[in-house]
Formats: sequence, C-alpha cells, structure tokens
Amino acid sequence: MPTESLKRAGVNVRIIDKRPKKVAAGQADGVQPRTIEVLQSYGLAERLLREGNQMHMVAFYNPSPNGGIERTGRTADITAPSARYPFEVTLHQGAIEAIFLDSMRELGLEVDRPIIPTALELSHDENELRDPQSYPVKVTLKHLDFGSEGQDDTEIVYAKFVVGADGAHSWVRKTLGIIMDGEQTDYIWGVVDLIPSTNFPDIRNRCAIHSSNGSCMIIPREGDKVRLYIQLSDKDVVVDKATGRVDKEKTKVGPEELLEVARKSFSPFTIEKAGEIDWWTIYLIGQRVAQKFSVHERVFIAGDACHTHSPKAGQGMNASMNDTHNLIWKMTYVLRGWADISLLRTYEFERRKYAQDLIAFDKKFSALFSGKPRTEECQDGVSHEAFLEAFQTFGAFSCGIGIHYSPSSIPSMPNITELKHQSLTSHQTVGMRILPHVFVRAADARPFEIQDLLPANTKWKLVVFVGDIGPGKIKQIERVAKLADDLGKSTGLLKRYEDGVFEILTICATVKECLNYTDLPEVLRPHWSRVLLDDVDMFGRTGGKGYDIYGVDPSQGAIIVVRPDGYVGTVTPLEGVKDLETYFDTFLIRTL
Amino acid sequence: MPTESLKRAGVNVRIIDKRPKKVAAGQADGVQPRTIEVLQSYGLAERLLREGNQMHMVAFYNPSPNGGIERTGRTADITAPSARYPFEVTLHQGAIEAIFLDSMRELGLEVDRPIIPTALELSHDENELRDPQSYPVKVTLKHLDFGSEGQDDTEIVYAKFVVGADGAHSWVRKTLGIIMDGEQTDYIWGVVDLIPSTNFPDIRNRCAIHSSNGSCMIIPREGDKVRLYIQLSDKDVVVDKATGRVDKEKTKVGPEELLEVARKSFSPFTIEKAGEIDWWTIYLIGQRVAQKFSVHERVFIAGDACHTHSPKAGQGMNASMNDTHNLIWKMTYVLRGWADISLLRTYEFERRKYAQDLIAFDKKFSALFSGKPRTEECQDGVSHEAFLEAFQTFGAFSCGIGIHYSPSSIPSMPNITELKHQSLTSHQTVGMRILPHVFVRAADARPFEIQDLLPANTKWKLVVFVGDIGPGKIKQIERVAKLADDLGKSTGLLKRYEDGVFEILTICATVKECLNYTDLPEVLRPHWSRVLLDDVDMFGRTGGKGYDIYGVDPSQGAIIVVRPDGYVGTVTPLEGVKDLETYFDTFLIRTL
Repeated sequence: MPTESLKRAGVNVRIIDKRPKKVAAGQADGVQPRTIEVLQSYGLAERLLREGNQMHMVAFYNPSPNGGIERTGRTADITAPSARYPFEVTLHQGAIEAIFLDSMRELGLEVDRPIIPTALELSHDENELRDPQSYPVKVTLKHLDFGSEGQDDTEIVYAKFVVGADGAHSWVRKTLGIIMDGEQTDYIWGVVDLIPSTNFPDIRNRCAIHSSNGSCMIIPREGDKVRLYIQLSDKDVVVDKATGRVDKEKTKVGPEELLEVARKSFSPFTIEKAGEIDWWTIYLIGQRVAQKFSVHERVFIAGDACHTHSPKAGQGMNASMNDTHNLIWKMTYVLRGWADISLLRTYEFERRKYAQDLIAFDKKFSALFSGKPRTEECQDGVSHEAFLEAFQTFGAFSCGIGIHYSPSSIPSMPNITELKHQSLTSHQTVGMRILPHVFVRAADARPFEIQDLLPANTKWKLVVFVGDIGPGKIKQIERVAKLADDLGKSTGLLKRYEDGVFEILTICATVKECLNYTDLPEVLRPHWSRVLLDDVDMFGRTGGKGYDIYGVDPSQGAIIVVRPDGYVGTVTPLEGVKDLETYFDTFLIRTL
Repeated sequence: MPTESLKRAGVNVRIIDKRPKKVAAGQADGVQPRTIEVLQSYGLAERLLREGNQMHMVAFYNPSPNGGIERTGRTADITAPSARYPFEVTLHQGAIEAIFLDSMRELGLEVDRPIIPTALELSHDENELRDPQSYPVKVTLKHLDFGSEGQDDTEIVYAKFVVGADGAHSWVRKTLGIIMDGEQTDYIWGVVDLIPSTNFPDIRNRCAIHSSNGSCMIIPREGDKVRLYIQLSDKDVVVDKATGRVDKEKTKVGPEELLEVARKSFSPFTIEKAGEIDWWTIYLIGQRVAQKFSVHERVFIAGDACHTHSPKAGQGMNASMNDTHNLIWKMTYVLRGWADISLLRTYEFERRKYAQDLIAFDKKFSALFSGKPRTEECQDGVSHEAFLEAFQTFGAFSCGIGIHYSPSSIPSMPNITELKHQSLTSHQTVGMRILPHVFVRAADARPFEIQDLLPANTKWKLVVFVGDIGPGKIKQIERVAKLADDLGKSTGLLKRYEDGVFEILTICATVKECLNYTDLPEVLRPHWSRVLLDDVDMFGRTGGKGYDIYGVDPSQGAIIVVRPDGYVGTVTPLEGVKDLETYFDTFLIRTL
C-alpha cells in the first residue's frame, strides 16, 4: 500500500526485504473495519473481501454451574455502527501480502529480496536536511543471495527518505537509537491454525472463552480454517530472561500440547484437528511505544517497529497499515514540492498518540482476557458483564473507526486539524475519517458510497454541502452563486497552489425530481459526475438522510475538507473560502 | 458463457467465428437486470459492473407548447421491483465479449477464427440421433486465413451437438431450412455513438424524446459516451427491396446527417460532438421468430438466429444469452448421461414462447415509439401517458425478470415445470427465476444474497424452508426430523441418480439468538455454510422477512426446487419427498 501509493504518485521508490519469499502461512491475519475502508480507498478491498472470511458475530463462553463452559451471550463482533464494513476480515498474511505485491507489480514494482541494510547514515547538514530534493540518507545494503557466486554483495543507496517498516525487532529503530517505552507482561499465549472437527456451535464466530481451565479465543478464518489463541502459564513455557522472548528450544510445548490445553477450555464440547496443523507459535505480550517515530523527518519507522501489543485484539497489522497510510500522502506532497517539509512532523504527532491510546486499551483488554473468570469459587474473577462492557467500550477504538487526530499548537509543525467551524457538521467530527454514506448522483440517479468518490489519490477533497437549492430556494441559490464566485477568483483557493491539489464534490439537499446537475455553477461541477443528491435511489433501497448523518443544516450548508487519507481536516461555512485559504497556506506552498 | 459453461462441465467444446477478431466498438450494448443476475451466477457480473455504465432513471420529453421539447417526467428505468440489480448496464459489445473470452481463456479455451462452416449434414439413423454418445452431425469448416499459403483450408468435424449462434442472417438456420415467421416494419432508425457536448440536463439518463421533428432515444454509455437512436423517414434512406436491408451505397445519410436530425429533436437544447463519432449504423426493424429452434435436438439455433426485433428495447443480446443459458445445462446433463435426451425438447418449448412474447411486446413498443407525438395539431398522436403506461406495463418483461416458463403436456417431452404445490410459495412463482433476497448464515451471521448460493454450476438446488424450529417448536422440529429421514433413505431422492445432481440449502425461520447450525439434522447441513436464517444482519442493515418474500408459512415450510439455470422447477411440502422423486424420475436417469 505505501510503496505502490508512492509509485502511483510518481515517486521513485525502492523496497527491500530480508525474507527470500513472501510469508506463506500464519502470522497476522485480522483486518479491521477501518482498514477495509482504507484498502478500498486504494482499490484493494475487493480482492480481500473475495478471498477472506468475515467475522460478524462474537460469542462469549463462561464457566457453567454444571462444569465446563456455556454460552453467556452473542453480540456483534464490532461496536461501531458507522462502519461501512460492519465486520472484520480474516485472511492469512501471505494472501494479504499477495494483494499488495500484485498491485505493485502492475506498476512495475517488485520487492528486492533477500536484502538487509547494514549501515544507515544521516547527513548533519541542516540545509540538506531541510531540502526535500536532497539525498541526506546513505544506506548500505547487503544482498544475501550474492555471496556464493563471488559477486560484490554490497550496495550503497542515497535516499531522500527512508521508512523502516521492519517489525518489532526493527533494525532501523535500533540503528537510530530510538528507545521503546513500556514493558513485557506475564501473559503467555499459544497460537494454533487448524481445520477443526468439532461440535462447538460457535466455531465460525469469534469466541472469547473464559473457562476455569484457562482462556481461549477463536478466530475463524478463510475456508474451514480456525485460529485458536490459547492461554498458557509460565509452568508450560520457558522465557529467555535476556531477550524477554520464549525460548523455543527449552520449551517443550508444541502444537499438540497447545491443542490439548484448548480441549480443556472447550469441555464439554470436543475439538479435534481434521488434517495437519497449519502454523503455530507461542509468545509473550509486550506493550511498548517508540519515543520517536522519525529522525529529522528523513528516516521514519512505522508499524511494529514503533509499537508492539497483544495480537488478540487484532491491532498489529491494522495499526501498521494505517501508519503508512498517514505518512505517504504527506511525503508525496513534500517530494513534489507542494508542501513544506514541516508537514511530515504531523506523522509522529498523529500516529504516536494513537499508538499510546492503543497500548492503554490493550493493557486493559489483555488483563481482562488473561484473568480468571468469575465463578462461585472465584468471586474476584472477571465477570461476563465486565468483559462484555470492556469489549464494547473499546470496540469503536479497536475497529479503527474511533481514530481521532487532534489539533496541535506546536510552533514548528503546521496544524492540519482546525476545529473553528466544527459546529456546522455536528455529527462529522473534524479529525476523524469522513463518515461513509450513500448519495445519489444528480446526472443519472446512480447511488454511490461517498467514500468511493474520495479515493486515496493524493488529492484534497472539498465536499461542498450546498444545502437545498431546489425551486424557490432563492436565498440558498444566491449563497451558492457567491461561493462559486469566491472559488473562481483568479488568485483564490483553486488557483494559488499547484494544479491537482483539489477535487470538488457537490452535495445538494434536493430530491432528484427537482434538480438538474446543470443547475449548479460550473466551478461546482467540473464534470457531470461530481454532483450528488441527498436522496434515495429509484427504488428507495439505499441513500437518503445524508445531511442528518453529517449533521449539516440544509438551509446553511457547509464545506467539509477531506485529507488525502480520508480524514476530515476542517469544516467551513459556504462563506468560508478565506478560512480555507488560511488553513491551506499553513502547509501548502503557494505558486501565486 | 455457453461455451465456458460447457467446458467447465467437462464437455469437449469447440467454438468458431468468421470474424478475424472480436468486435471492437458499437453493436449491442445493453445488459438487462435479469441478464446481470445470470452473469453473476457464472461469476461474470463483477467485471461488467466495474466497467459498464448504469442506467437507473429514464426521462420523457415531449413537444412543448412553446415549441421544441420539454421534460414531462422522470421515472425508474426498470419497473421490476424484485430485480436484484435495479438498473441496466451499458457497455460496448467488445468489452462484453472480452469478459467471456477472458473467462474462456482461463479454462484453456479460445475462439477459432476466422473460420466459416460450408456444409452441415445430420445423420438420418434414428438410433444414432437418439444416442447422446453418437456423433450424428458432420460439419465442414473452411479456414479463411489458410488459403494464401497453399494449405488445405478444409476441416471436417464430427459433433455430438451443434449450436448455431450465428446472428440474424444465420447460416445454420438457412442450411437447416428453418423458416422465420414475421415481417419487416417500415420503421427506419439511425444509431450514432459519440461523446456529446450539450446543455441537455438528462444526457446521462435513458431518454425517450418525442418531438414534432421525429423521435430519438438516448442511451448513456461507459465513460462520457452516449448512444443516440434517431428516427429516420423513407425519404432519407434507400431500402434494397430484394434483401429488405438498408442500401448503404445509395443512402446518402452518414453520421453527420444523423446528428443533424437529432439536433432538430433536441431543440431548444443543443448537442454537438466532442471528438470523433465512435460508430454508427442505419437499420430497418424486422420482427421475426424461427418456426423451429432445433432439428432432432442435435443441431440448435440460438439468439438472433431465431428471433430478431428492434434494438431499442435492448433485448437482442439479453435474449441471446438467456437462450444458451437455458440450453447449456440441459445439454450437459444429456452428455453426461444423467438425463434423457428428450430433456432437450424443453429448450425450444421454453425459449420459442419467450421469443414470441418478446416480438409481441416489441411490436407495440416500436409502434408507440416511432409514432407521432400528440400535440395540439396532432390529436391522434401518442400521448406521454400512453407511452409511459406501455413503458411500465412491459417493463417487467423487457428487463427479463418477467420470464415465466410454463408446464407442458407434450407426451414426447418431460414436464420440468410442475405446479402441484404452487400455493406453498405464494410469492415465488414456479417457472420464474428464484427471487433474490438476503439471508444470514446461521454459523457466522454473515449476510448472503441467496442467488449467490445458487450458482450456475449444473447442480439442482433443494432450498429447504424448514420453518421455525426455535426452542419449543416441537411439531416443526419433528417434521424436519422426518424430512431428514425421508431424504436419507438408501434408495431415496439423494441416492437414486448420479452423485452431484443435488445441493441442499436450508433456511430456518428462526432468529440468530435462538439457533445453532448444529441443531439441524446432518443431511440438511452437509457443510456448516449451508444453513441460513431468515434474520437481519448484526446491525439490521440487510436481510429479514424472507419467508414473506417467497410467501412461505413458517409454521409449514416448503421445499423450493431450483433448476441449474436459477428458475424454479417445482415446490413441495416438507412431506413431499415422494413428489420430488416423481418429478425428477421424468427426466433424470436412475442409477438405483
């Protein structure tokens, strides 16, 4: 996603990996609702949805008074009603990587492998560091497959920017000397991927099983596969004190032993493997955030390199993809000379706060999940109600929909979240992702999900809610005409930066019988396809009530400014073109 | 679609075409709602929907009292509320062919071209004609690209079956001596494909323009393209009396002249071409149906080869695809030895009646559309109301949703439409396509469109509406247990024919909180994915009220039998396994 996005934006990009091949099985595999929205904005969700499994429901099992476990409830797997995709997708990491690799390949981009970096030097020259066209990073690479034939396996790359997305044990992070804040927990979990043979009725739902024999989580996957997360005790596992990692040599627990532990949690239900075990691992939960996400905004770290947490909440891959989704449009603007390099400071500002919130969430959730369940004998245990409440409270956050970027007043960094006119869109929070909703296109009454009209194509979108401009609405029609004049000015917003920064989408609070797309001023309809109506489709199956969804008054209107990554940067009234100019002047470079 | 479907079913298939390449532009391009459903059942709709334009709305223009035209109404382009895809897709024929060709290529199948047949001989031996494993058809082919290099350009093919899908001037039809019933009309139309520059507000909607200067129809297409159908008079066009076709040599009308005629209809709106004209033609409407659709059920004709009509109702390509969709599963069954060859007689029975209805519809519609509009001066003309009524009356039929196959009592042909228990599904008509509806999967609460679970994979589907079997519904649970016993019998329905004839899908009128998929008897859940609930999804966005949609009583239940082409063959009560055996015994060959 990040590399292909840069490539598509015309950036010369190189991606290296130490692995000789892509991941084949196992590893991270849960894609959250917001991540699906993000993938869709790159045109990559269709294949994910075709190949992946969907988790719509979660079931909770707790100790039964009769021994063993019993179901105490079923509820929606996600708790964010505004999610466009109200479920999680599970698919093994190899298949997810393949979606990216194939998409990159269409652009003529391959991963260079197996290669490792061996040295990284950053210029100390202030002017060079501040000039986006300079190459201040020198990276030494070693080609792991070259040595045997006597070739020189060393390569030097001079780069404008380097991004280390090299995992929890990040070489880039260590080389930069960036410290991780946080700690290792005592929670030890085993993971097994298998095709089960079972009479357990919720085997195709996400399940949180709290039994007196330990906790277990079920994650159903593509085809008939299922992943089990199985709680272990430190009696089962030997931890290497020095590294804080499980000592796989000394630990005598293998996949069969893990399944045996799971069986005890499942009782009175049975579970056996049908065929071979696909993949397994054992891990300790670490909860840490890097102190810095970049050095001089020239070398960045992203994903597990800057935050590690428990995999059960399914956050790892999602947080990682969203890190680079946040970074890449900013880097593109700086490389094109469209934005000042200080824009890149907002990456750490926005994503580090998110990572800290994520760890805080993970600590609470892991403690509840790894704790003993409440039973007659164990009154201090975690009750179903307490777990369910935590599950739902953190739901909006854990599914990614709750990501909320804040304004800043740091002098060296532009503020790209401007709340001044927040009240004009009472249900669309500035700093959060643009809400999904279906509108009907004025020219042909075809319904469209608005997120599909706001793709991750590096453009800023001005979504102009013009209000009701139907027959007789003279006052609103005049306001819209005035807005068109303001936007059309020769030194105005649409002319003062590089061509191609903005796209306009116009939304009328007028039903299809009463409006022609040709009624709009031309600046608000650069193409016939750019005018939408807040109306239902021809059979009333979808659409309608869009002004309510965003909390916009149809007798007022509003302009919602959507960032290239789909988050709302600011909101202004129709008379707010001056405010927009002020907003963009803080980080876009003027050409007029 | 037909060829790849045969190939996928394991049939050795050869397809020839006289054209050296696939069609590049123009020609037929409207795909009706039912055809989209059919393409989806083969897994081919996704690309069509991605590449094509959608027509949701139709606008009507009539003479204005002030001169020129004015809009008299807008309505839904289709009038079948049960359509899964409530719109038409327009896309040029080359792109539609490419979807088929690419899908064939994945199966290792290419079109052999340029090749024409020069002779076709059918055996006179009764036994040979009746034996599906014989090769009674001898076809002589001529390779059009062979001659120049001195190669022998003749090839002899011995075939079990031959299908002539070779157009309105079908060589196969003429060679078989099959007569076309019907006549040529006096209606002459021109067609122009262009990117318009216009101030006409409905240029992206289907439009029926009745002006005092002639009629015109607008069909918006992919990208910014538009097709115009323009009424001409016999003053403009020279018809060759011998062939009944337009004499393109002597007719002095070209694309510029067609556009000039259109401009007069558009007034007071303006229309100009932006760029070159993509494609154009002039044609006379002929309305004919072949007397026979096959000879001895060994050589068939399909599509325009057996019915021709006006293109403006967008029927041609749709009727053609649905002809072969009807034929191919039957041919597959006969070739596999699973069904008696008499099953093939139902092809002509079902499709010829449809073609006759189509022509009857087309006659009325063409007359209304080619007639003068009603104005002050012309009180005998066609009023907007009369045209709109005809448009809506024939809407369900013209969009393909209204196709309705009838029972027969012809002794030599099995009856595959059995109405005995029709009353059990009061809203699902036997002989019509299975209604689309969203159900929720019991095992994981994921919503599914039922049509996607009934693909065109040559299987017969037993859709078992088991009724409400929730807690306390003892009587219904007992009926379902009895049904499972009946189905499981060692000489019963599921055992008496070849393996792979049937697929079972079970639908419970029970909400997700009250049912586990494991509650069903095993014969009704051959896999965890085969049990559905009549319930909404976790957020209440889709699904629910499915028993109402089909008109099934949850305290009774019903078994709906869906043919491999998605049409309902019969319906029985849960106690009707004997009726099902009787039904299938009339055309399936027993193995027990």
